[in-house]
Amino acid sequence: MDKVLIYDTTLRDGSQAEGINFSVEDKLRILEKLDEFGVHYAECGWPGANPKDTILFERLKKIKTQNLKVVAFGSTRKAGKKVHQDQQIENLLRSGARVITVFGKSWDFHVIQAMGTSLEENLDMVYETVRYLKEHVEEVIFDAEHFFDGYKNNPEYALSVLRSALEGGADWIVLCDTNGGCLPNEVYEITKAVKESFPQARIGIHAHNDSDTAVANSLMAVLAGARQVHGTINGIGERTGNANLCSIIPNLQLKLGFEVIPPENLKKLTELAHFVSEVSNIPLPKNMPYVGESAFTHKAGVHASAVMKRSETYEHVDPSLVGNRRKVTVSDLSGRSNILYKLKEMGIQVDERSPELVKLVEKIKELEKEGYHFEAAEASFELLCKRHFGLVKNYFDLDAYRVLIARRSTDVSPVSEATVRLYVGDIKQHTAALGNGPVSALDRSLRKALEEFYPNLRDVQLIDYKVRIVNESEGTSAKVRVLIESTDGRRKWGTVGVSENIIEASWIALTDSLIYKLLKDEEEGII
Amino acid sequence: MDKVLIYDTTLRDGSQAEGINFSVEDKLRILEKLDEFGVHYAECGWPGANPKDTILFERLKKIKTQNLKVVAFGSTRKAGKKVHQDQQIENLLRSGARVITVFGKSWDFHVIQAMGTSLEENLDMVYETVRYLKEHVEEVIFDAEHFFDGYKNNPEYALSVLRSALEGGADWIVLCDTNGGCLPNEVYEITKAVKESFPQARIGIHAHNDSDTAVANSLMAVLAGARQVHGTINGIGERTGNANLCSIIPNLQLKLGFEVIPPENLKKLTELAHFVSEVSNIPLPKNMPYVGESAFTHKAGVHASAVMKRSETYEHVDPSLVGNRRKVTVSDLSGRSNILYKLKEMGIQVDERSPELVKLVEKIKELEKEGYHFEAAEASFELLCKRHFGLVKNYFDLDAYRVLIARRSTDVSPVSEATVRLYVGDIKQHTAALGNGPVSALDRSLRKALEEFYPNLRDVQLIDYKVRIVNESEGTSAKVRVLIESTDGRRKWGTVGVSENIIEASWIALTDSLIYKLLKDEEEGII
Repeated sequence: MDKVLIYDTTLRDGSQAEGINFSVEDKLRILEKLDEFGVHYAECGWPGANPKDTILFERLKKIKTQNLKVVAFGSTRKAGKKVHQDQQIENLLRSGARVITVFGKSWDFHVIQAMGTSLEENLDMVYETVRYLKEHVEEVIFDAEHFFDGYKNNPEYALSVLRSALEGGADWIVLCDTNGGCLPNEVYEITKAVKESFPQARIGIHAHNDSDTAVANSLMAVLAGARQVHGTINGIGERTGNANLCSIIPNLQLKLGFEVIPPENLKKLTELAHFVSEVSNIPLPKNMPYVGESAFTHKAGVHASAVMKRSETYEHVDPSLVGNRRKVTVSDLSGRSNILYKLKEMGIQVDERSPELVKLVEKIKELEKEGYHFEAAEASFELLCKRHFGLVKNYFDLDAYRVLIARRSTDVSPVSEATVRLYVGDIKQHTAALGNGPVSALDRSLRKALEEFYPNLRDVQLIDYKVRIVNESEGTSAKVRVLIESTDGRRKWGTVGVSENIIEASWIALTDSLIYKLLKDEEEGII
Repeated sequence: MDKVLIYDTTLRDGSQAEGINFSVEDKLRILEKLDEFGVHYAECGWPGANPKDTILFERLKKIKTQNLKVVAFGSTRKAGKKVHQDQQIENLLRSGARVITVFGKSWDFHVIQAMGTSLEENLDMVYETVRYLKEHVEEVIFDAEHFFDGYKNNPEYALSVLRSALEGGADWIVLCDTNGGCLPNEVYEITKAVKESFPQARIGIHAHNDSDTAVANSLMAVLAGARQVHGTINGIGERTGNANLCSIIPNLQLKLGFEVIPPENLKKLTELAHFVSEVSNIPLPKNMPYVGESAFTHKAGVHASAVMKRSETYEHVDPSLVGNRRKVTVSDLSGRSNILYKLKEMGIQVDERSPELVKLVEKIKELEKEGYHFEAAEASFELLCKRHFGLVKNYFDLDAYRVLIARRSTDVSPVSEATVRLYVGDIKQHTAALGNGPVSALDRSLRKALEEFYPNLRDVQLIDYKVRIVNESEGTSAKVRVLIESTDGRRKWGTVGVSENIIEASWIALTDSLIYKLLKDEEEGII
């Protein structure tokens, strides 16, 4: 079985999407998930291009991935300069990445018009840059920018750019449809021509979705001989996005018979898609192939009953292979097996037909209807399940909280003050604290009340806080969903709160975060 | 130039999408737009299948379209029945439609398993139904359900189903990928085989998007000889949707050189897509190819300046050909040329070297460092620029605001109360209001203070509210970025606020939203 390698650029090309702005922490969390999932390469950024990417590569030096190769991205040397004197190239080497991708021009029109240099100099730039980098790192990938447009305009020149990269020692030559304008038949023909010109070369494809055919273009390139596919999770990216790996991977693996990622990992595809959607704060369209909420939804009665009898009658693949599930009617029970699976992971053994399980499934459905989403809030989900089975003790009882935010025009910034009144056992605590904002004031006030009893809470830090409006559907009043990401230096966990009131939603996510810390420490015998 | 006919099924297959529920009026409005646009066929429903479709066809009898052919959709006769005694067939004829599409099974497995009849009887059902209908109406189209799966399983039988339809007198045989599981290479090969078997037949393609390749599959079928393409506007439809006509039409016409619709009508494509999105109440993804808001958005500074010089360097087609427009967004990668371009759009003429421009660029960079992001907040950006050039008057002066949120353990939900003290000219307003949460309380209190002076603020509605933590440079305290989207029924605009305090950030975005409304109404001479 032939192998196709997946090259993810969610962190670089994906972050170019309108409305996406990943923090360094976001990028590290996504990277961890990609590694777990089994992606082969992850392009993390352009070292030196902006402070955020530079910090990221510094952080990455201390991180060990399982199988994933961290890639630094940059460009060929400047025209008319020496490659070893080019600061941009120097930054690539200093990044610590052992795989470097450099892009170079392969469209003669671009070389002359946009770059204003000669065709020969461009070939030298490609050759020298690849060769110099290859002396210092394990693997060099060459991205031939605008390759297809270039080939259509001047095939000899486009091919000579690839030749320069190969002569420089490039491990891969990647054909980029930078403007996304190509159609699948062209991509197939041109990739085949490249394969015939360089039968020994390892070829990659990098497609954009401007013609709405990025997935198909990637597949056709593989059929023509490409063995590395670039793309992003959920197809996020500039303009209309990059090729969507969430569709490409199952198409290659389940339909075309290529070996891409371990089949058991493919079951995490839907979860991965939703995770990236939450972190990017861009909702996943319900109709997204393979991973969308409606991807396996059957509305018509005939379809639904046929599907129950023999699923292949109206389903192109078994949804469980990609970690999605069939949705048939409002009262479907398909959630149960998922939840059983999760409970098992938590060490909770329960019979499939137990009334306790049925009640839990109902509770979860109820919460989902209210706007809860547990994909990025596994800690809240674990607490919910364990509370249901009486496995979480009562660390404290809230009596009341109050938050006041006030600003006069003469103030530089507003004042935020919170008070909390609670009981730990019989002992009453009444505390007050200021904060930069209402949530931090609440957080401080709550800790002030608890840390005396639970000193290990001092290790907990909130590292991310996200808010989204949910249920925009008409008639109902909008709710707010707050996601909090916390760490104690050893673990990271996510919690969620939903309410009409942002402060109350924050309070729910905040208290869940602290309780989760206490529960885990207790389970591990630390307190 | 070869002609390809467009067969729209937005009203039938499109209405199967989760969350879509068109009224009869909606359907008539969409039909009118489709006719104007130049679509050749519109499948309007299944007469008799439900009361709504029956009413629609009654209404349609009184409506004259320009070029569009109204199509009624139904199935072949029941197994073991006479075709002229089949009520379903009778309903099709009574609908008044002069074009009828009937679907029949072409996958042997389905005939036997799902329908429980013999392969021979199915052939008779197809032949007799087509023949009978063709005696009564102008044009009969045969939809071969599950054709590709059927062909892969039993090519002889699948082809014999098509033959029966052609012998019955079908004007078109349409190859349906009902489960959406086929990939472009298969669709090409199989369509070609059909074309070779029936060189005289007119062939159509009906694709679903389960493999994320419906657009490509449709194009590949056309390249193999199909000349009728089925699909929906925006690709709406059951599960992952139907083939998206908004991508197929420009691909066929602008790239593959087919004659599809009049070029001047193609300029209405973006408008049509947004119209159907509004009527379906399903927001159009920004990254939708050709018609999405971000389809021609340039973020990076290098791209943006190259695009200004020669648009083909980074654009696959001229956006005006499909009625869309180029958008240059301001982001942390931006430079002076982007901002100049935006100022020009606002009608502010300024010299490239003017010190005022330099100061503005510096101010924007400063704000971006603080965590401001103007891509989704063009209104705030416009206010910022116009304030810089003294073009925004002082609608009010804030004196102070206060917000209190309190919850006791016995409360069902927290109480949120806001007070606002401000001056409009010399007049002091001091108001208080409750809200579901702190932001709605502030919003209500602010409007209470202003509406007396600016009654047009009553039209403003907040439609989205997003919050993110921005802690891009480590070491500094985290800030909160709030994005608010507003509408007054005619326009939509986005505003942004950044602060360490979520309430203050919301206040900034909120006041900008209201001021923007006042500014625009004033510019347009409404107030």
